[in-house]
Amino acid sequence: MKVITTIKEMQEEVLKIKSQGKSIGFVPTMGFLHEGHLTLIQNARKENDIVALSIFVNPLQFGPKEDFSTYPRDFERDRTLAEAEQVDYLFYPSVEEMYPSEPSVKVVVRDRIDVLCGKSRPGHFDGVATVLTKLFHIIMPTRAYFGKKDAQQVAVVEGLISDFNFPIELKAIDIVREKDGLAKSSRNVNLLPEERKQATVLYKSLMAAKQAIENGERNPSVVSEMIKEMIHGECTGEIDYVDIYSYPELKPLEKLDGRIIIAIAVKFTKVRLIDNLIMDIN
Amino acid sequence: MKVITTIKEMQEEVLKIKSQGKSIGFVPTMGFLHEGHLTLIQNARKENDIVALSIFVNPLQFGPKEDFSTYPRDFERDRTLAEAEQVDYLFYPSVEEMYPSEPSVKVVVRDRIDVLCGKSRPGHFDGVATVLTKLFHIIMPTRAYFGKKDAQQVAVVEGLISDFNFPIELKAIDIVREKDGLAKSSRNVNLLPEERKQATVLYKSLMAAKQAIENGERNPSVVSEMIKEMIHGECTGEIDYVDIYSYPELKPLEKLDGRIIIAIAVKFTKVRLIDNLIMDIN
Repeated sequence: MKVITTIKEMQEEVLKIKSQGKSIGFVPTMGFLHEGHLTLIQNARKENDIVALSIFVNPLQFGPKEDFSTYPRDFERDRTLAEAEQVDYLFYPSVEEMYPSEPSVKVVVRDRIDVLCGKSRPGHFDGVATVLTKLFHIIMPTRAYFGKKDAQQVAVVEGLISDFNFPIELKAIDIVREKDGLAKSSRNVNLLPEERKQATVLYKSLMAAKQAIENGERNPSVVSEMIKEMIHGECTGEIDYVDIYSYPELKPLEKLDGRIIIAIAVKFTKVRLIDNLIMDIN
Repeated sequence: MKVITTIKEMQEEVLKIKSQGKSIGFVPTMGFLHEGHLTLIQNARKENDIVALSIFVNPLQFGPKEDFSTYPRDFERDRTLAEAEQVDYLFYPSVEEMYPSEPSVKVVVRDRIDVLCGKSRPGHFDGVATVLTKLFHIIMPTRAYFGKKDAQQVAVVEGLISDFNFPIELKAIDIVREKDGLAKSSRNVNLLPEERKQATVLYKSLMAAKQAIENGERNPSVVSEMIKEMIHGECTGEIDYVDIYSYPELKPLEKLDGRIIIAIAVKFTKVRLIDNLIMDIN
């Protein structure tokens, strides 16, 4: 595995690879790799000649009150994990390398952002789209891998790739779950023991909603009320949102039809959990 | 020469070319080709294996009161000219092909725009940067060719390419001039006969300014006043601006140093002419 810290060197390597007609699978991350990231890398490994992983904590996507400086970092651990997954290139630039001066251009996301978690994070997705635009030009991937856990991010990236005509295939990878259905997250360790047991209700309520829709329910309010009742009944956490939208457009629906997302966020004592289900309705 | 109208087909062709390790020279235009465009194509022809020309009148870069619908178009003439210059690919998409729906993302230019001609065209360079981002992803050029006549556009493109790390070399090509020094433009035919003779003062004043700087003048106000006096003395046109900035940053200067631009715009009876000089001062 080659660790590269400069844009120039990374682009030179990539241009060599591409002139040989080889495919590149790319997994962009902010590091502190967990099982979700490793699953993305494994998918990229299976489908491409070359696998590139980036680790960059992007200041542009943190709000002024958010945790950029305290965001967890452990490069040596990440490097070992990446090497074990047979990553070919680990791109690990500094903030100064990525933003040497105040940039004269930025990407602005105009849609799919005023809902779900984006609602409370103004500017967050502009920062995500801007850094991804840069990374896509540096790595020039054939395929880029994102986890469906952050479904709104996937929706924004889908818009970025299709509206800007990036020659990149977006691969959205299924959520990795614990045996009892809880979506894996580094944050799960912050659940109190009792909350950890209750937290399975998120997935259970999504499955119940799926069942109801498959049985013919087409009213979004009925489905979201059902989920809210299940969560209230089985856990002490406070519901942040239970929302249903078209996907990836993230527009409200009067009637469930086509591809939809059911997205949940619940606040526990020390941690806020999210989960979602994307399904196609005919 | 292959004429291609869909993004998908263009990208497929380009990916084939790139996997063979061939270089692509790209000339983006809005059509109605004139000698300036042909010079760009000739430069691209000399320096690349493959030459791609795009013709697309981009609605995004026209203001609501500007002439999008009446902008001159003559595809058959353009096609003949392009073929004669040995262009390999002519990309000629419709507005629906480029913007099938309201895009969820756009490029916003934050710098280098509130000066020169950009001052009076809010949003113009956002439209330019957004369509170029799309075209760069569709053509994936090794080198992209722009004329120095529109020096502010070159400055904005320089920022776009470097801040977003496009793997593209920007080639800014010198202004093509008539024998008497007047910068070539399709608009010159709209000068009255007397104005046509006077208009040579634009270039003459730039040359005089260059001489003064080479002789040691370092005060921008002295240089721009000198130019204004020359223009007033020799022509009936009304000066729109005579500005001196750092280049490509387009920041005001207290003292002439480094790379600078001297830019002029003069309004004649039926036409407004621009000209400029970029020079390095040690």
